[in-house]
Amino acid sequence: MKNEKLKGNMLIAQSGGPTAVINQSLVGAVLEAKKHREITKIIGSLHGIKGILEEKLIDLSKESPAVLEAVASTPSSALGSVRKKPTPEDCGKIFHILQKYNIRYFFYIGGNDSAETTHIINEEAVKSGFHMHCFHICKTIDNDLRENDHTPGFGSGAKFVAQAFMGDNLDNRALPGVKINVIMGRHAGFLTAASALARVHPDDGPHLIYLPERPFSIEKFLDDVKKVYAKYKRCVVAVSEGISDELGAPIAAKFSREVDSHGNVQLSGSGALGDLLASEIKSKTEISRVRADTFGYLQRSFAGLVSENDAKEARAAGQTAVKFATGGDWTSGSVAIRRKPGKKYQVYYERVDLKSVAKETRHMPEEFINEESNDVTRAFLDYARPIVGNLPKIGRFKGVPVAKA
Amino acid sequence: MKNEKLKGNMLIAQSGGPTAVINQSLVGAVLEAKKHREITKIIGSLHGIKGILEEKLIDLSKESPAVLEAVASTPSSALGSVRKKPTPEDCGKIFHILQKYNIRYFFYIGGNDSAETTHIINEEAVKSGFHMHCFHICKTIDNDLRENDHTPGFGSGAKFVAQAFMGDNLDNRALPGVKINVIMGRHAGFLTAASALARVHPDDGPHLIYLPERPFSIEKFLDDVKKVYAKYKRCVVAVSEGISDELGAPIAAKFSREVDSHGNVQLSGSGALGDLLASEIKSKTEISRVRADTFGYLQRSFAGLVSENDAKEARAAGQTAVKFATGGDWTSGSVAIRRKPGKKYQVYYERVDLKSVAKETRHMPEEFINEESNDVTRAFLDYARPIVGNLPKIGRFKGVPVAKA
Repeated sequence: MKNEKLKGNMLIAQSGGPTAVINQSLVGAVLEAKKHREITKIIGSLHGIKGILEEKLIDLSKESPAVLEAVASTPSSALGSVRKKPTPEDCGKIFHILQKYNIRYFFYIGGNDSAETTHIINEEAVKSGFHMHCFHICKTIDNDLRENDHTPGFGSGAKFVAQAFMGDNLDNRALPGVKINVIMGRHAGFLTAASALARVHPDDGPHLIYLPERPFSIEKFLDDVKKVYAKYKRCVVAVSEGISDELGAPIAAKFSREVDSHGNVQLSGSGALGDLLASEIKSKTEISRVRADTFGYLQRSFAGLVSENDAKEARAAGQTAVKFATGGDWTSGSVAIRRKPGKKYQVYYERVDLKSVAKETRHMPEEFINEESNDVTRAFLDYARPIVGNLPKIGRFKGVPVAKA
Repeated sequence: MKNEKLKGNMLIAQSGGPTAVINQSLVGAVLEAKKHREITKIIGSLHGIKGILEEKLIDLSKESPAVLEAVASTPSSALGSVRKKPTPEDCGKIFHILQKYNIRYFFYIGGNDSAETTHIINEEAVKSGFHMHCFHICKTIDNDLRENDHTPGFGSGAKFVAQAFMGDNLDNRALPGVKINVIMGRHAGFLTAASALARVHPDDGPHLIYLPERPFSIEKFLDDVKKVYAKYKRCVVAVSEGISDELGAPIAAKFSREVDSHGNVQLSGSGALGDLLASEIKSKTEISRVRADTFGYLQRSFAGLVSENDAKEARAAGQTAVKFATGGDWTSGSVAIRRKPGKKYQVYYERVDLKSVAKETRHMPEEFINEESNDVTRAFLDYARPIVGNLPKIGRFKGVPVAKA
């Protein structure tokens, strides 16, 4: 570990699925970089590593403070994004280009796949003896990064899900039936679980929550729905797009053949899973009014809906990455959000190894899921509430019956 | 027209699809009714006329001002809703019950089907010589009531659609491809058209907008998409669930067999239309990344997202209905929202005949749709902006390219 500060340019890029606060991290990093004399030019790469490969680079030092702040509060990756795993050939080319532009500070905002890419770039840098700081800035609405208590983007996505369910539960109460909502989350059920935050009264939905962490059985699902329907004459269901059968095969994958370069089957951007579950209920129960909605891309980049803590933390994660990179203690790493123990919600940021967040994802811990595998626990609600923040107040009539005339 | 005021109880109910502000109208009517001594008891019927038939009635006089205000700002019909066209037999039964409870003031909040029901009840009252005031309070996110400049619920639904498209356009800009969003609106394209409010920059989506007012052709659609994609390397499309072919048959109906008691084919609550259009593009063009989302029920009852003007006007429509009913000039009618001519946005309320809003719906006027039938006009944007109100600010980088190294 050297104390001497490495002089050179900085390059920052965004990758993977956009979030409502991903630009907070970008702007946090840019504003912090401006404070460091060792960082000469602040370069943004368009569409992640694709922008490096194609040399589509913009000078972020030339953006005004007003524009930076406006971008920070705008949803979805302002630099553009990409879903691309670099091939060994790409890696060679990337280094040639990074060296050419004298990039000494590299920041990649994204999920576990992006941490993996940052790791590969760092390994390559080490191998080639090119002195460079490589940092990954955590991001994902799925909340599935290891080492993190939670990740930027999740809080705002969860807030969207909770508010959607608050309204949809009331819609279902007004016009009873079965309503299924399909929520993002390939392997981790955090976002789907956040639907439980919508509950205010004991009879409020979601009445059933299905997560990718537990095997999904159509028979058990139909039984659960029938039970809830018998009790409330209605039923609101939250289903993760990633629910899988006993063998681990995603139910939705039966309807999709599209695979990205990381080997992930395309699950979002189609209403097939919701429609399948709805038709199962229609054909195998007596319930006639069954509807399904798939929240799709709305939940990750809706304009004008953010969790305040999420926005604040996303900004801090970007700032912190630059502080870690310029601090002289480490040449690479990922910024992880940790929660302080105690009743009051407080977070802090730690540098962790790139390898420890790359590749594998985190799942909902056992204590967050109920025994029946169809709901979350109180522990999850306590965990999620401060991340999501305040939700709208819901009013309900006392409803004093009128005496029969 | 008598000046003598009719003494008796009031009954109010909600019908049809919920909206984000339908409870503002309810609470507006209740608070106004409390000022009128001729109205003795204020009764709410649960689930529209179904609650009358089953005598499921609650005493709204017993709700506290705090609860009333909390309910007013809560989305979705607090009294419950119904989609039921009363049979002649139902009508007889309804009068028996209304007479039994000495209902002299009847208010029904809903769309054109609800106006029709109010009209039938009023006709029955006239026929039976039972003195009663029957008023319809306009509501529908579809904005398809005749006689109205716009209807309560539309502004908030349109705000949801606009904000969703703002975010989704940026999502599509970050990860380019074709994105189709399916929006509610059986016969009227107003809500789908509101997606155009999302545009800030000239290249912003939605790039194409398809409305039920103009025949939809798959071939023309594919041509349009290819043209936009060639220009921007991406394409965001807004499609109304109600788009129909040359013969007037809804495209979505090919996938749905469910019909309600008003004879309407079920269009919402399924992702089939979006998925169909997406697969057409995938199979008939070279474009590989194609996604479809169906906004579904989220757009009509999302918690915590309302247009301020919409909330204010919904409240006023409810108040005004009670004023009209107690004013002594009319025994029946519907409250219509009109816009004052001039640059400044101002509305006023008028009583119109029930028959003039019942049954048939209103469509987007010709001057709101472009010649190519794939976009809206400036006239529509000027019309819709004040109804929807302020939208989030969107930031974008100037993007000064870095000189090649």
